[in-house]
Amino acid sequence: MPFRFTLETPAAQPARAGVFETPHGPVATPAFMPVGTLASVKALDPDDLRALGAQMILSNAYHLHLRPGDEIVRAMGGLHAFMQWDGPILTDSGGFQVFSLETLRTIREEGVEFRSHLDGSRRFFTPETVMRIERNLGADVIMQFDHVVPGQSEAGLAREAMERSLRWLARCRDEFVRLEDVGPAEPPPEAMLSPEQAALGLALPRTARYGEQALFPIVQGGIHADLRRASARGIMELGDWVGVGIGGLSVGEPKPDMYAMLEETHEALPADRPRYLMGVGFPEDLVEGVRRGVDLFDCVAPTRMGRTGGVFTTDGRLNIKRAEFRVDPRPLDEACDCPACRRFSRAYLRHLFVTEEILGLRLLSLHNVHFLVRLMRDARTALRDGRFDAWSTDWLARYFSTRT
Amino acid sequence: MPFRFTLETPAAQPARAGVFETPHGPVATPAFMPVGTLASVKALDPDDLRALGAQMILSNAYHLHLRPGDEIVRAMGGLHAFMQWDGPILTDSGGFQVFSLETLRTIREEGVEFRSHLDGSRRFFTPETVMRIERNLGADVIMQFDHVVPGQSEAGLAREAMERSLRWLARCRDEFVRLEDVGPAEPPPEAMLSPEQAALGLALPRTARYGEQALFPIVQGGIHADLRRASARGIMELGDWVGVGIGGLSVGEPKPDMYAMLEETHEALPADRPRYLMGVGFPEDLVEGVRRGVDLFDCVAPTRMGRTGGVFTTDGRLNIKRAEFRVDPRPLDEACDCPACRRFSRAYLRHLFVTEEILGLRLLSLHNVHFLVRLMRDARTALRDGRFDAWSTDWLARYFSTRT
Repeated sequence: MPFRFTLETPAAQPARAGVFETPHGPVATPAFMPVGTLASVKALDPDDLRALGAQMILSNAYHLHLRPGDEIVRAMGGLHAFMQWDGPILTDSGGFQVFSLETLRTIREEGVEFRSHLDGSRRFFTPETVMRIERNLGADVIMQFDHVVPGQSEAGLAREAMERSLRWLARCRDEFVRLEDVGPAEPPPEAMLSPEQAALGLALPRTARYGEQALFPIVQGGIHADLRRASARGIMELGDWVGVGIGGLSVGEPKPDMYAMLEETHEALPADRPRYLMGVGFPEDLVEGVRRGVDLFDCVAPTRMGRTGGVFTTDGRLNIKRAEFRVDPRPLDEACDCPACRRFSRAYLRHLFVTEEILGLRLLSLHNVHFLVRLMRDARTALRDGRFDAWSTDWLARYFSTRT
Repeated sequence: MPFRFTLETPAAQPARAGVFETPHGPVATPAFMPVGTLASVKALDPDDLRALGAQMILSNAYHLHLRPGDEIVRAMGGLHAFMQWDGPILTDSGGFQVFSLETLRTIREEGVEFRSHLDGSRRFFTPETVMRIERNLGADVIMQFDHVVPGQSEAGLAREAMERSLRWLARCRDEFVRLEDVGPAEPPPEAMLSPEQAALGLALPRTARYGEQALFPIVQGGIHADLRRASARGIMELGDWVGVGIGGLSVGEPKPDMYAMLEETHEALPADRPRYLMGVGFPEDLVEGVRRGVDLFDCVAPTRMGRTGGVFTTDGRLNIKRAEFRVDPRPLDEACDCPACRRFSRAYLRHLFVTEEILGLRLLSLHNVHFLVRLMRDARTALRDGRFDAWSTDWLARYFSTRT
């Protein structure tokens, strides 16, 4: 098996450090995964990601199915070759995106019919079609197609979605296994070449190998403890998973509810599999998540904030566009060693934002992603040294100390 | 003297290779200088520029005076420190920009009154104020404030502007010498700190040293051979310049006229000083310029085109957004070794442009700048090997061979 998870800290405490091995290399956990929705972590280069220590990145089946098309990604050798990221990749299934298209989709037991947010074209996602899309993309970890409901949904709706997600998980698993056996049904990638290209003798990259992916189930259940436990139990009855996603959190519910759900889920899941808290989050959420047994995180916040001037620092958040930074010679964060902080003053970075220079978007995105990657590396060191409780308390106190 | 120009090829032929030494290092010529109008070469990082072999870059006094303000740049240690480019920098005076503000400016012998293109605020540029701005910015080479007219201006207007540019050159020279002697009159940079910043004990970077700049005159005269010769003669009567700019070309006149003016100017200028053809150009213009004795070039074309999908290749130009590149596994240019071509397929780069990913802007800008920098490096090698005529003929033939 190319996948393995090894705990490096005692199993008695929820917070843990580990190593998650994948076909494209190991991930030292806890870890933050930068998000490359459309096969690009916005404003960053794969070389930037490697240099700042990112280990595993995320991409999105819904978005890549629409553009450029998962069959094109497959024809170009799969997602790793296409975007030139040779480390581990995880693809989200698109469940979250499809269910966010509120007025554009119809949910049936078979699947979800929806209209593309780009051109209104009619599409139909089922557990089976999503597995084929994620196989075409060829990420190391692929997420099940699940039914996502808003964060504060009442128990009836949350139960319906949770139970449907379990039924869809069984169908995802069956299709995943079938594809492992028979391979893809689609025409060979060479068929996509135009006659002119074929005449040039263009050779397409070898298609990503099949059979080296792991399917992760997703725990649902809203903010209802009994549903979360039932979801985790149901998932474990359906297979011996490499790892488990925790979904439907950080979608509008109060933070204490999110933390409580993590605690419920922790008890119900096997300790020896990595847990991935989907779409979370901000620095404080990562620290609180690690406290409650989460190993993997992802969020668009560091790059999205970076594109609007928002900056994480050890002493809380700031916005670089503020006039007070006009002649400020300091780096964004004096405790940071990222390529933005090593070289540039706040005055220069503010100037880049005020004049809408593209370099500003890259430097702030780079700093913010580095901030979360390093935060998880520091948490890991503290965990291995047996001083995580003190470290996390101190870290949170400093982060919130200068906020008004 | 920190400036020196050494020819490495026989002076008998117009086309030449040389080395232009500056306080921030040597520039092997002929060379293309990427343009960082607002202290950032658009979409690129200074590390990108170093990696692709750029030697000297350009910035703009008009734009930096408006944002962030040349006194802020000075307070931050000068342009080199501000933008973290430790190689040579040249600043254009803003003459071109001010004269482009057609309805917003009034020309008098004293100077040009204009309204900022950003906020309409009233400003007054004279040879003296422009010298102070360029001193504050602290580039290695600073251009005189000149009177620029459209490319096809009739002889009367072209003569008036050329003669005024000579009178303004004398005033620039006098103010340049005065500033060398007395230093800047402005308050020390520390005075720009707010009380809160002063209380923090923030130390601003040491102001860029004065006295290590070279003032370049600018040959004007439109497309009138007698005026160009008169301009060159007039300039040489006003001083012993480190190098000379050739302005007012590539501004709407036919290309043969531009080439003819270069030939006229070549005869009238001393052979042992570097010549900088301002705002030029496209690959073919660079090759034709080198043929006629030009040593330095600058143009926004590689980055501007790069942001709209335009790509220079050895076989001519292409636009990456075209549908034919959907599944094209080839690099932009198979003869190119830039970081975009070494890693990414046309299919991926097209996807980045179609989805408006910022990485696409950077990769195409990087490729295009690399293309011009390498073109001049190849020209230099051919010059030193005594085979420039054959090389340039072959190069142009291939570049235009596949165009329709």
